[in-house]
Order: sequence, then structure tokens, then C-alpha cells
Amino acid sequence: MQNITVALDAMGGDFGPRVTVPAAVQALSHFPELKVILIGDRTSITTQLSSLGYQVDARLSIKHCDRVISNSEKPSLALRNGQNSSMGRAIDLVSVGQADACVSAGNTGALMALSRFRLKLLPGIERPALISALPTVSGNRTWMLDLGANVSSDADSLFQFAVMGSALAEQYLDRPPRVAILNIGAEEIKGNDLVKRCAEMLSNTESVNFIGYIEGNQLFHDYADVVVCDGFVGNICLKTSEGTAQLFIDKLKTYMMASSIKGWIARKLFSGLINELKTLNPDQYNGASLLGLRGIVIKSHGSADVEAVVNAIGEALHEVKRQVPSRISDRLEAVLLERHY
Amino acid sequence: MQNITVALDAMGGDFGPRVTVPAAVQALSHFPELKVILIGDRTSITTQLSSLGYQVDARLSIKHCDRVISNSEKPSLALRNGQNSSMGRAIDLVSVGQADACVSAGNTGALMALSRFRLKLLPGIERPALISALPTVSGNRTWMLDLGANVSSDADSLFQFAVMGSALAEQYLDRPPRVAILNIGAEEIKGNDLVKRCAEMLSNTESVNFIGYIEGNQLFHDYADVVVCDGFVGNICLKTSEGTAQLFIDKLKTYMMASSIKGWIARKLFSGLINELKTLNPDQYNGASLLGLRGIVIKSHGSADVEAVVNAIGEALHEVKRQVPSRISDRLEAVLLERHY
Repeated sequence: MQNITVALDAMGGDFGPRVTVPAAVQALSHFPELKVILIGDRTSITTQLSSLGYQVDARLSIKHCDRVISNSEKPSLALRNGQNSSMGRAIDLVSVGQADACVSAGNTGALMALSRFRLKLLPGIERPALISALPTVSGNRTWMLDLGANVSSDADSLFQFAVMGSALAEQYLDRPPRVAILNIGAEEIKGNDLVKRCAEMLSNTESVNFIGYIEGNQLFHDYADVVVCDGFVGNICLKTSEGTAQLFIDKLKTYMMASSIKGWIARKLFSGLINELKTLNPDQYNGASLLGLRGIVIKSHGSADVEAVVNAIGEALHEVKRQVPSRISDRLEAVLLERHY
Repeated sequence: MQNITVALDAMGGDFGPRVTVPAAVQALSHFPELKVILIGDRTSITTQLSSLGYQVDARLSIKHCDRVISNSEKPSLALRNGQNSSMGRAIDLVSVGQADACVSAGNTGALMALSRFRLKLLPGIERPALISALPTVSGNRTWMLDLGANVSSDADSLFQFAVMGSALAEQYLDRPPRVAILNIGAEEIKGNDLVKRCAEMLSNTESVNFIGYIEGNQLFHDYADVVVCDGFVGNICLKTSEGTAQLFIDKLKTYMMASSIKGWIARKLFSGLINELKTLNPDQYNGASLLGLRGIVIKSHGSADVEAVVNAIGEALHEVKRQVPSRISDRLEAVLLERHY
């Protein structure tokens, strides 16, 4: 079994080492092929490790660094001063080949700027995109991108997102992924210039299985395998969906928490249902990938708990095994040849 | 009691007279001050009326017209050929003062184009916006606009949406409405140029109570009374939320409808739960208003059922009573004075 090394930004996210260190320890016991390099403040990391009765060994190492990029830091500033930050160093380890992938729960804009600068983009890609899987009623997954790596996009970028998303989904499916564009209506006349131009480009590209537009209320119905949108829309759409799902789960929980006999029955009746509903919350999958780079970078939720960070590390392992960047690169080359660029 | 006349596009929506006619009859019995003019194919309307044991009288009249605007018709074409359609005639009745408001479940783009052409915009408004109320966990409402009247907007339009939304919400609240802009993060550095420019304008406008940015997952938490966004984002956000809510309600229904003993107990004890969850589905409020016009135009969901169309008629009555267009006009004047346009 080949080892896979993940560089984990120990300081990123709302909780820093209190979550990332236990997650690293758990991930090491889950994934026998895994090695983790924790990057951040050595004292905080060591304290957390000790409290878990763990210490550095052949599979777990620490690289100390002082600086942390805050959530309010502008990407441009992070790019100037952030290369010695825990996030910057984690990306660096990928770029010099000391790690196979990097995971961070830090500032998305900074992660994108630093990754782009250090790892470089794949040929034919102008902007990376953040992709994640949404659950569907049928139990399948729908990959959606861009979820906020960019605050605005042109049709060429949206087209590239479609190609990249399709290449990623293809690694999980036995058929050409169905690719749709998120829009405000299913009819051809609907939408803004951006989606119309991208739809035209995709319609003329045989190597992408473009099926047309999809609306927000169809996202979970397994109509498409890949849904493409600009980062502003994608981020708001995903968060709205997570917020709505959480609202319903919370409401049901209120019933179950009642100290009455009814509450007791509700707990007995609905505990399985709550778990089932949770699987429909897009929030369940932690670990969005930053696609389009010559390296694997996984963005974890800022508010991720230990289990969620373990999932993000698992996603990194998957992508390393499936060699996602080179799959995307192959696919891009085929599309670019077809389009006679 | 003063009569209020509503012109109802009987042909609009997925079901046409099969839904609009029973809705008109129900609304007449709900609202004693209401008069309805049904516009559309006289034969279909009369057939529906007869089957309900109802006929035209002093409160219910029919205006025949042949043409219906389809959902796939471009707004530009609807504008050229649609003035003799059921939708166009309904709007006309408002513009000539024969009706106080119009309600249609037809093509949104056509409704907007025809309304704008026939009713004209309020002074200081460049584009109308579609506004509707979302439910919140606390039982209050949050008004959101634009929900898709426009597929793209500039900062000036977004600013005008904020002023209009605030003027509408003010009619329902005892305090200055809290106005927020929908964005991908709460920090000042987040977002695209559009939201940043609009935020700057609102920060410098004392007569609007601007509280900053709001994220998709906070929409239902009563953080804001008015949420402003461009029509593309708003439409997708609303539909995503409705889709997610429906998914959860369906899941719970399946559980409660099960023929098992568990299903039976769930039905006996928790029949109120589904209704409570339904009140959290943004879909519950039917009847979005087209704000910014010199007249009242209410857009009903295309898929609205009888009850939902009755709600849309009720919304029209509310707005007539509260004289919404002139309230917005007053508010705009105050803001424009303040901004020294």
C-alpha cells in the first residue's frame, strides 16, 4: 500500500487545533495509508496531541509556523504576506511534492489566491472553482460548482467549470455525467447573458453531455450529475439550502426534546427519520475541492467539527487515488482539441 | 365599505380557468369588499362557473379575449402582440382605472414588460422588482426582492429595490425595517462589485435602516426585514429554499403515511407537525408584488392551486388598502431629496 501524505492547516477554521488535531488523529486510525503533516503553532498542536495521549511519529509530523490568515484578510494581502502562514506552508508542501494534497478550513479567498500562485493552474483553465457534492432524494450525488472560489465569472470560465466538474464526476459514475446550468427557468429564453452564452458553448461540445438548464427546486431530484453556476450564485444557493435543511431538522428536534410523554414517543419514533433527514442536508459532505490547479486542495467548512474534518481528509485521499488533476487535464485537452482552440 | 376591483388573468398559470375561476368564487366569499373581473376565454370561464353553480353577477364579470401568452414567449414578443391577451387586458383595466389591481399567474417576463409599458414606472425607479415575504423561525416575515423580474441589475437598481422593499415592509411593521443585502459572507471584504457598491450607497442613506450583509443560511432567522439581491440570485435562492423545504416535508409525509404502527402513532400524535413545517416553506405565501409601478400587479405562482390564488387576490386587496404605490413614491422622494439627485 502506497502512503498518501496530507498537509493539514492546523490553524484554519473557527476552532483551530482543538478540532484539526483530534481530526488528524482519528483520520490516521481510519485510513491506514495516510500520513499527516500538521502545520501551525507547535505548542498548541502539541498540547492537543498530549491531551489525546498521542505524539508525533512516523505518520504524524508537525511543521511549526507563527502566522495565521484571518477570515477577514483580503486575498491580495494574504498573497503578499501569507506564504509563511499555516495555510501558505500547507500549500507549499504540495507544490514541492512533500505532500500529495492539502486541507484547510481557512479563508476561502486566501486559499484560492495562494493555491493559484503556488500550484499554478492547469493548461486551459483561467480560474479554479470550488466543487462539492449535494445529496439527492435517490441517494445519488450531484456535484455543484463554483461554490464561491470566484465572486464573478464569464462564460468561458463557466464552460471550463462544466468540463472540470464533468471530469470529476466521471471518476465516480459509470456513464457520461449529465451536465446542467443553474438558471431561473428551464426554457431556452430564460436567464442572463452569462448562462445563455455558456449553454451555447456546451451545446456545441460533444464531449460534454449537456442536458440544459436546471432550476433551484430541482437540485435534489437527481436530474443532473453536475450543476454549473457562477461562484456568487452557487455559494448563496448552497448556504440557503443548508439553512433551510437545518431549520427543518431543528424544528423536528424541538418536538423530540420535549420532556413530556409526547417528547419521549417522538424520540422513539423520529430518531431514525432525523438521521435520514440529515443525509439530505448538503452540509453533510465536508470537503469541497478547489478544481483547476496542478495539485489537490480541499477546503473544509470553517465551522467543521472533528468528524467533518476527517471527511475532508478522506476526500483528499480519494482525489489523490483517482489522480483528479491529471484526469481533468486529459479531459480539458480533449475538449480544447474538439473546440479547435 | 369601499369596493375593490381585481382584474384576474383567468388564463394564466399551469391550470388556467380550472384554478382561477374557483379561486375567484372563493375569494368573493372570503372578501366582502371584493369585485372580480375574469379575463379570458368566455366559454371556458362560463363552463367552470356553471360547474360551481355560479354565474356572473354584480361582483363577478367576464371580459372575453382569445389570446393567451405562453410561458415560453419572449417578453419582447409579448410586448408587441400581447396587449390583447388575457394578461395584457388585465393590466389595461388597472391602467384605465376600471380595476384597482391585477393578478396573473402567467409568464413573469411578459407580465413585467406589459406592466411597465402600460402602467409606467414610479418617478426615480428604473426597473420594477418582484417582492415576496419569506417565513422566519420567529413567526415574523422577511421580504425579499428582486425575485426574478430582472435577470441582471446594477447598483442603482439594487439601491432602489432596497428603498421600495423598505417602504413596503414599513406598512406592516411598527419600526424602521432592517434592510440587508444578500451576499456570500458577512465581512465587508466579501462579495462582488454590485453588492459592495450598493452597500456603500445604503450606508450613506439615513432614511434606510441598512444593517449590512446577510448570508443564505440566515434568511429564515429574522435577522432582517428586507433582503435585497439581484433577480437572478433571488429567484434561484427562493426556488432552492422551496425545493429543500418540500423535500423535507415529503420525507416526513412518507414517514407518517406508512401503514405501520409507527406511522399510525405518528399520525395520531403529530398531525400538527406537518402543518407547522409547511408554515416554514417560503412557498406558502403566494402572491409576489411587482413593485415600482404606478399600479398594483400581483404575480401568482404558475403552479398555484385554488387556495394559493385566493391568497394572491388577498395580497392585492392588502396593497390596494395600504396604497402601496403611493407609499413607495413618498419614500423614494424623501430618499432622492436626501441623496441630492
